[in-house]
Amino acid sequence: MTKVKMIQNAVDRMVPTVVNGVKQIPFQGIGKYKPNGKKAALPIRSCSDFPFDGNKIVKSLQSALQKCGLKDGMTISSHHHFRNGDLVMNQVFDIAADKGVKGLRWFPSAAFPCHKPVIEHMKNGVVDWVEGSLNGPIGDYASRGNMNGAAVLRSHGGRWQAVQDGEVHIDIAIIAAPTADAFGNATGDSAPSACGLLGFGLVDSIYADKVIVVTDNLVPFPCVPWQIQGQNVDHVVVLDKVGEPEKIISGTTKLTKSPDRLYIAELTAKFVQAAGIIKDGFSFQAGAGGTALAFAIFLKEMMKDAGVKARFIRGGSTKYLVEMLEEGLTDFILDGQTFDLEGVRSMRENHGHVNTSPFTSYNWHGKGNFASMLDAVVLALRKLILILTPML
Amino acid sequence: MTKVKMIQNAVDRMVPTVVNGVKQIPFQGIGKYKPNGKKAALPIRSCSDFPFDGNKIVKSLQSALQKCGLKDGMTISSHHHFRNGDLVMNQVFDIAADKGVKGLRWFPSAAFPCHKPVIEHMKNGVVDWVEGSLNGPIGDYASRGNMNGAAVLRSHGGRWQAVQDGEVHIDIAIIAAPTADAFGNATGDSAPSACGLLGFGLVDSIYADKVIVVTDNLVPFPCVPWQIQGQNVDHVVVLDKVGEPEKIISGTTKLTKSPDRLYIAELTAKFVQAAGIIKDGFSFQAGAGGTALAFAIFLKEMMKDAGVKARFIRGGSTKYLVEMLEEGLTDFILDGQTFDLEGVRSMRENHGHVNTSPFTSYNWHGKGNFASMLDAVVLALRKLILILTPML
Repeated sequence: MTKVKMIQNAVDRMVPTVVNGVKQIPFQGIGKYKPNGKKAALPIRSCSDFPFDGNKIVKSLQSALQKCGLKDGMTISSHHHFRNGDLVMNQVFDIAADKGVKGLRWFPSAAFPCHKPVIEHMKNGVVDWVEGSLNGPIGDYASRGNMNGAAVLRSHGGRWQAVQDGEVHIDIAIIAAPTADAFGNATGDSAPSACGLLGFGLVDSIYADKVIVVTDNLVPFPCVPWQIQGQNVDHVVVLDKVGEPEKIISGTTKLTKSPDRLYIAELTAKFVQAAGIIKDGFSFQAGAGGTALAFAIFLKEMMKDAGVKARFIRGGSTKYLVEMLEEGLTDFILDGQTFDLEGVRSMRENHGHVNTSPFTSYNWHGKGNFASMLDAVVLALRKLILILTPML
Repeated sequence: MTKVKMIQNAVDRMVPTVVNGVKQIPFQGIGKYKPNGKKAALPIRSCSDFPFDGNKIVKSLQSALQKCGLKDGMTISSHHHFRNGDLVMNQVFDIAADKGVKGLRWFPSAAFPCHKPVIEHMKNGVVDWVEGSLNGPIGDYASRGNMNGAAVLRSHGGRWQAVQDGEVHIDIAIIAAPTADAFGNATGDSAPSACGLLGFGLVDSIYADKVIVVTDNLVPFPCVPWQIQGQNVDHVVVLDKVGEPEKIISGTTKLTKSPDRLYIAELTAKFVQAAGIIKDGFSFQAGAGGTALAFAIFLKEMMKDAGVKARFIRGGSTKYLVEMLEEGLTDFILDGQTFDLEGVRSMRENHGHVNTSPFTSYNWHGKGNFASMLDAVVLALRKLILILTPML
């Protein structure tokens, strides 16, 4: 490993000047850094290079990867809407290994315990390193310094920004899709493997050189809603099964039973009430952790007692938020990630359950930030919960 | 006027090599020309340059144009979803005149008779020329050779392509929006001035340097659906009235009463029936001209008699297509332009009435073409109607 040069940032932390060969800009203070330059520009395409009948189905994942020119050193991306139930990405790297491809960078929005086999592909050199949120064995592998590259954990908006700004160039994006049509339009809100929305894969579909949609539920054109637009897709692959939706629900999205955590949730809700924030048209983001869910339940009762309706709730959606929507306690759920199957159903059925992406909200290199439309104090309290909970 | 150099294209037509100072590529035959190069790249933005509370409202259209740096020689774009009922663009050029700005290019998706005052601005040098579909007095003015620049009529997809490829750079896009929120999210499907969808303005919102949303119906964040995303918007202006929706219905969208045209429509429907195209899952595009509407009505009766359901109808939507959707004769209307108020209502109320843009369909420099998913013969027949009708 080469010696890493460190530099002090605006909050006195020593940070590397280069990560995985890419020059970094140390934090300069809030709002201090002004980006310049232009967003990543994609090659201009031509319809004459695509099937005239609009049918982009190829016979196998192998074939699709070959048509995309899979080769050494490429960056392969994927979304994590199946969370621990993804059945596609291990296949992708097995195929790469079969083809003798080396030195790939995997750029998922997140990796889960189900992706443990990728560790073998890191050992055998097929995958050089993984750049994304690392949960479970791959995280452990990286923490022990075994990975041939630095782990880079980006926020959801930071991932969009890195791709949009050309800091990470995706060669091939793999979009696992519960439902798709032959043109590549895809949605996550219906079908046997329904996982809700596909918002974390949106930036990949827009900016990757090549985009492969992988589905196990092909419908006649058009697949509506088209959360991913076929106009961004090169190839469509049909597999027997792309994901296990029952594994979308991770352990973190269960209501807490801890008395201490319930007490924090109750105190938080009471504080919000006392601070006068609970009034018609307010908004909140509760998150899907056990304590945050308990907070939402306390809040719900207070809203009912006071006869107050929220304008929107920022999700990760869960059945608790869906109940609030369907009981008329909020006009909208703005959903960034569906955390349970009630969330999936609601997104399909309720006009007020809206599919969003990090473009809609968290990209700092954008034209403002809708997260700032959230009632600020509620957002701050959410952070407080996140800080306090591990202390118990 | 400078001498124009002409060159012969692949179908033996003499065409100019340069139009309005931009080098042209003569038609080389279907699928022969392969574009190279990259799509237009936009400057990277920063949220620190936008209001922290997400409120982008500025006090007037003058102020918004000033903040966008309106100056000589800029390209100002607009969509035509209000058709002859637009109340915004004349104000924009009056403001430009007041500020002494000269030599603008107006790049609308279409201009209508209501835009006649722009002729005065061409005479006084505020507007150099108009590049877009020219209906009514501006078309007449251009046809007589009075315009200080060549009229360029692009197809809907061609306009998307020209902007996407950087052939036309939009400095300031004006998006007249029946409903919007303070962050710039906007929709056309509701409110007093509802005009349906805003799809023709989508490319402008994505690629313009600066984007102004102008609305007369401000709603609390979030405006849903967000046909135009606030993340692409710089400023929001609230006016008393942005459009007259009763003028959306142009003279061309009335059912024909001409016996000859009705006969063409009937023969066409009978031909489609005899050719065996009317079967479950088929699709068609009928257009909104009087003869095409009559064709759709004949077709509807045939479908009912045969117990056949279409997968989708490609709109311009009208009350006739909405009836088919609501009577269960088609799964979807894929709408590119709402031609009457029943279409507007249906888009708001029916899940199967889908908002599209030229990106979804007609852009030849894309990854395939969904228009090719249409049953080809029906599309060909539509063209036949367009050719035959003027002959009567």
